[in-house]
Amino acid sequence: MQNKSEKWIAVDWGTSNFRAYLLEGSQVVDQVLTNEGMKFLNKNKFEKVLVNNISKWLSSNNTIQVLASGMVGAKQGWIEVPYTETPCSVMKLKVLSPKVKNKKIKVYILSGVAQNYPEDVMRGEETQLAGYFLNHPNFSGSICLPGTHSKWVKVKNYEIINFNTFLTGELYEIVKNYSVIKHSVSTEQICENTLLEGVDKILKNQGNFSNELFQLRAKHLLKNQTLDESNSLLSGYFLGLELLGSKHYWYKKDVILIGSDYLNHFYELCLKKEVNSIKKFSSSEMTLKGLNYFKNNLNFDDLMTS
Amino acid sequence: MQNKSEKWIAVDWGTSNFRAYLLEGSQVVDQVLTNEGMKFLNKNKFEKVLVNNISKWLSSNNTIQVLASGMVGAKQGWIEVPYTETPCSVMKLKVLSPKVKNKKIKVYILSGVAQNYPEDVMRGEETQLAGYFLNHPNFSGSICLPGTHSKWVKVKNYEIINFNTFLTGELYEIVKNYSVIKHSVSTEQICENTLLEGVDKILKNQGNFSNELFQLRAKHLLKNQTLDESNSLLSGYFLGLELLGSKHYWYKKDVILIGSDYLNHFYELCLKKEVNSIKKFSSSEMTLKGLNYFKNNLNFDDLMTS
Repeated sequence: MQNKSEKWIAVDWGTSNFRAYLLEGSQVVDQVLTNEGMKFLNKNKFEKVLVNNISKWLSSNNTIQVLASGMVGAKQGWIEVPYTETPCSVMKLKVLSPKVKNKKIKVYILSGVAQNYPEDVMRGEETQLAGYFLNHPNFSGSICLPGTHSKWVKVKNYEIINFNTFLTGELYEIVKNYSVIKHSVSTEQICENTLLEGVDKILKNQGNFSNELFQLRAKHLLKNQTLDESNSLLSGYFLGLELLGSKHYWYKKDVILIGSDYLNHFYELCLKKEVNSIKKFSSSEMTLKGLNYFKNNLNFDDLMTS
Repeated sequence: MQNKSEKWIAVDWGTSNFRAYLLEGSQVVDQVLTNEGMKFLNKNKFEKVLVNNISKWLSSNNTIQVLASGMVGAKQGWIEVPYTETPCSVMKLKVLSPKVKNKKIKVYILSGVAQNYPEDVMRGEETQLAGYFLNHPNFSGSICLPGTHSKWVKVKNYEIINFNTFLTGELYEIVKNYSVIKHSVSTEQICENTLLEGVDKILKNQGNFSNELFQLRAKHLLKNQTLDESNSLLSGYFLGLELLGSKHYWYKKDVILIGSDYLNHFYELCLKKEVNSIKKFSSSEMTLKGLNYFKNNLNFDDLMTS
């Protein structure tokens, strides 16, 4: 059990970002956010980046526990933590401790979850699911974690029954930044009605997806379609693709959204008429709750250091 | 009419590449290929790039005609040549002549073709269609021009009736180069049977497209799926998306492919069982034939210089 005033550090270390929280018991007393995500780092840089970011929290007298989840435990991360396999309880994850040079820290990295068929993986989302279950132990239904790689997860009794990942956010970003369409969608504005129109087009005629993308350029050239309209349609097309492939998760089901306020809002907008119920939770809050749970419930003393 | 030994220069100036041919009448006597495509050039660099590439063909005594088609005539190109609108004969295109400083050249740029609804545009492919019609004046059916932005065109009596563009090649390239899947598909190898399997998956269950993309990463991580297999499936998924949206052009129809030998081969492989007939032609040959036709049939003397 946790000492209520014990200081420790929770880290959410994903593909694109690094977020660390200093806690006393379960209270956050300080935090740091940088863009030093896993994809920007070589294997031997992780300890250095971590220590640089949390140095003001370290003391020469004590060793502080650092508990991390996310892509930091991937093959290209700090140390590869083997996946836990579905179906599995998200409350019982594996954890590995990488060797560190700095004596002021002791680092633990949580495993992700893998599905054998259809093949799929997550690292970080399982921690959010654990955080959600702490206050909703009886929830049975579908959880959507929108983002770069959106996940739809069927859960029951703290367990992940199955899940599917959609490349939604990443496809949107790379088409927006690298394709010929970039000149037609160079804005961050989203018009909600136009987004819904885009979703609807794909749900009704998914076969035309690739042609609809090119039409964004043609409509810009020929009809002066605005950047806002094109960007909203582009978002809608990719969100529509995801909703098409995930329909068995949400259609007339109880749905939980765990994401940023921004994404949760758009997903709710698209889904609310077609689901049984829908509720929204913050992904960063769920991550912290999840890490806090594991801090209190894993027996760190028994762990082998890699 | 053309003087049989008159020297002139044909230019196929696309988004990514520049290709120039020196001809005597209709005979190619020299050629140059560079990667100075439209997308890499500022508006005021086009004349300089052209002259640099063809300088060895220029003489101080004569002015040589240069006839170009492709993205060089786009808004972001050298000079914007207004589109010809469908339905239209590909044998009667507009042409504009940009002002040039160099007195040794006189440059003419052909228009592209635009479709009002559904909105679509082409620049360069119309020249290939003209080249094809020269030897096949009676063809009525569907022409596919595979590539970065694949076109499917319904033609009859030298006319474009309608057409649709698919972002096939470009989506494949940006997913391969910029997405999380890049680690799983870093090869140029294509296994034909696996490509066909990928096409078939999308034709049968297009809704799962976005999830199938992520599965390529998961299968690489969990099942050691080879790079060749993943790359072949990736190609198949994007080709499948195109074939899904273009089915009304090819299913039990007479189909002409105008592309590189490489792409023509794969398109034929995927289509041959489902079409009425299929024939392949080289896009670079059709471009040259088309430019040669326009050289002989446009009345350049009447043209206004922009």
